Amino acid sequence: MAVILITGGARSGKSRRAEARARSFAGQPVYIATAEALDAEMAERIAHHRARRGTDWIEREEPLDLVQALTETDGGGGRLVDCLTLWLSNLLHAERDWSREVAQLADALPRLKSPVVLVTNEVGLGIVPDNALARVFRDAAGIMNQSIAAVADEVEFVVAGLPMKLK
Amino acid sequence: MAVILITGGARSGKSRRAEARARSFAGQPVYIATAEALDAEMAERIAHHRARRGTDWIEREEPLDLVQALTETDGGGGRLVDCLTLWLSNLLHAERDWSREVAQLADALPRLKSPVVLVTNEVGLGIVPDNALARVFRDAAGIMNQSIAAVADEVEFVVAGLPMKLK
Amino acid sequence: MAVILITGGARSGKSRRAEARARSFAGQPVYIATAEALDAEMAERIAHHRARRGTDWIEREEPLDLVQALTETDGGGGRLVDCLTLWLSNLLHAERDWSREVAQLADALPRLKSPVVLVTNEVGLGIVPDNALARVFRDAAGIMNQSIAAVADEVEFVVAGLPMKLK
Repeated sequence: MAVILITGGARSGKSRRAEARARSFAGQPVYIATAEALDAEMAERIAHHRARRGTDWIEREEPLDLVQALTETDGGGGRLVDCLTLWLSNLLHAERDWSREVAQLADALPRLKSPVVLVTNEVGLGIVPDNALARVFRDAAGIMNQSIAAVADEVEFVVAGLPMKLK
Repeated sequence: MAVILITGGARSGKSRRAEARARSFAGQPVYIATAEALDAEMAERIAHHRARRGTDWIEREEPLDLVQALTETDGGGGRLVDCLTLWLSNLLHAERDWSREVAQLADALPRLKSPVVLVTNEVGLGIVPDNALARVFRDAAGIMNQSIAAVADEVEFVVAGLPMKLK
Repeated sequence: MAVILITGGARSGKSRRAEARARSFAGQPVYIATAEALDAEMAERIAHHRARRGTDWIEREEPLDLVQALTETDGGGGRLVDCLTLWLSNLLHAERDWSREVAQLADALPRLKSPVVLVTNEVGLGIVPDNALARVFRDAAGIMNQSIAAVADEVEFVVAGLPMKLK
């Protein structure tokens, strides 16, 4: 079934767009959050997203085992994964092999029965960061985005709330 | 009348593109600068823009009260507002309620008689900034860009001097 | 002959795309690297690119005198210049007049007989850098990208491995 990747910058309207796409499929939509409310800033962001999204979603928090979460929720309505860059960041912090996990996700996505809409971020369009860890992260994010875009049926790049079709 | 939003990165050719769009309307074009020449770097940038633009513009500096400047200059040629991100930065520094001001601008734009071309920046496509204030600014800029894009008749994203039509 | 500019963010798939475009022309492709293996991170990146590209390329390292390298390799297969932002960075470090060198490159490109594919980076879509040198660099990169895009026959913006046609 459909695999849709929605990419863009911070506060570009990616999540809103992805919510609309996930809702457009039959069945109760499933929200798979990769975020954990570890600090006040993140808790506020999560609450803001939930308020906009409404209460008719099945909600699941999954910071690390995304393939498992997608497999277990397969067979129902559209799934929204928000977002891949946070998942990647969680993998790096947990010292998991992110490269292998991304490859496993890319492998699993086309086999799923229910649609999946994945949100990700473009983080490589600024100046090279001073911080070596930030450089590792932005390289990993770029590689991840390419890998998932390669297996996606549709890819959209959202700027100022407006989607551009990449695929 | 036409509301046109031109977005893009630093030195992407946004201003040049916006000047051409503003000039294309009948009447003497009006340049509304949100910049103030507070330091040498900014003074140089303002002088550079003015030199390219030519002297046939009505010029107005308005760092904060943009809706008022647009209302007072309404009824003549095309207006060019350069740029919204600097206006937002000015609002934040002045501790004004930026969210309310952006909503007022979005509300006012479609009611104006003369065309308006607004320049803004995409600032959310790099790595998450370490600095909390920079994170607040980039979130605010993203929200502002979405709000203005939503009411604009046309939106262009400029990369390497070349416009992509978003709307 | 064809001048093709491929722009995008870090790890966006620009180089892979540019390699495919350069290979598509008749004759043995020529790889003009502006990178020098001055540290371990850069050496690894160069090795990674070479491994993917394969061994059927004529290889040349040219950190500074790009017009000369293009002139000397003219008349054969497609040339791939990877990348312009690193060349610009080398010019700045060597205290060369980057503005003049960019103008000379823009002037030389349309006169060449063999095709040229140039890779560059978008670096101006993040928050304004604190560092003044980084601001100088991102301004210079934006101006360079506009100058080269203006003389190019084709310009592509690559996001998540997928090209958007700008020109």
